[in-house]
Amino acid sequence: MPLVRIDVLEGRTTGELAALGDGVHRALVETIGIPAADRFQVLAAHPAGRLVFDPNYLDIVRTPGVVLVQITLSLGRSLEQKRALHAAVARILAADCGVRPEDVFINLVEVAKENWSFGNGIAQYAP
Amino acid sequence: MPLVRIDVLEGRTTGELAALGDGVHRALVETIGIPAADRFQVLAAHPAGRLVFDPNYLDIVRTPGVVLVQITLSLGRSLEQKRALHAAVARILAADCGVRPEDVFINLVEVAKENWSFGNGIAQYAP
Amino acid sequence: MPLVRIDVLEGRTTGELAALGDGVHRALVETIGIPAADRFQVLAAHPAGRLVFDPNYLDIVRTPGVVLVQITLSLGRSLEQKRALHAAVARILAADCGVRPEDVFINLVEVAKENWSFGNGIAQYAP
Repeated sequence: MPLVRIDVLEGRTTGELAALGDGVHRALVETIGIPAADRFQVLAAHPAGRLVFDPNYLDIVRTPGVVLVQITLSLGRSLEQKRALHAAVARILAADCGVRPEDVFINLVEVAKENWSFGNGIAQYAP
Repeated sequence: MPLVRIDVLEGRTTGELAALGDGVHRALVETIGIPAADRFQVLAAHPAGRLVFDPNYLDIVRTPGVVLVQITLSLGRSLEQKRALHAAVARILAADCGVRPEDVFINLVEVAKENWSFGNGIAQYAP
Repeated sequence: MPLVRIDVLEGRTTGELAALGDGVHRALVETIGIPAADRFQVLAAHPAGRLVFDPNYLDIVRTPGVVLVQITLSLGRSLEQKRALHAAVARILAADCGVRPEDVFINLVEVAKENWSFGNGIAQYAP
């Protein structure tokens, strides 16, 4: 159910991009109970100048290796679950992909359960 | 007012992509009363490996022909309207574009009416 | 904290795209108090036919110079702040980038404060 968009600057291989997707997905599975097979992601690499990031906002030093992760998911996660998710994404991308934790930017967008269809035109998660 | 993002793998022609956009728009018009001229869409085709989907989640068999449809729209649609929208998107993409219904993934993101400007810097739908 | 996606048709230079990003950011800073260094944007240029817009919806005449601006930001802005933001985006893109105000399409997506991490896996804005 999560729909994950990962945006980076060009320079990573397709395999490295796939590893970013793997890492974000593992964080979702480990921290907020997303099923392992519930994986839908768009991985996009942008030319120089087309992914804009501040190199220092909140005194966090970012580099062109920055990874923007936008996750659309169903409502219902607690503050603690969200904190755990943020932490796991940064930790796993560092451990598995060599991403600096400072370079991991995350945004969650929450929607109602009936706002998903996984195929066949049915809202499988609707109440 | 809906802003529709359609993401697929490379392989469809621009005409086939346009037909996907046509089909999603027709579903919006027919099921939730979107005006025919209220159409804004971004159609993106991604290289292999950059659109990730589970081939079997919820026992729905997906292929590389998968179509991810993310629709941002105003709050206020009922559960029944959303169900009708999901069904119509899958039905129309199958009938008009030859997309397998299993390959149609849909996500709705809802926002307030004042969160739109259709031009001139005015929030035309604000209360 | 805002995550801004700007989508246009191909034809603008990277410098012109950057100026669009500059303009949207300045509008955010001037109208809703976004810190100047809080800037994260994805600027995408699409081939002909892959950014679809109605040329006349609501009697606003749009051209292929249309600029779709989708801004994900935290909840909490008033109707008046949103109106000011819409107006400023159109005004600044016209003044600084020569964009016709009719060609500026804006959508805001609002999320909870804990739905952001600016690095290091921490939800810096969580309550």
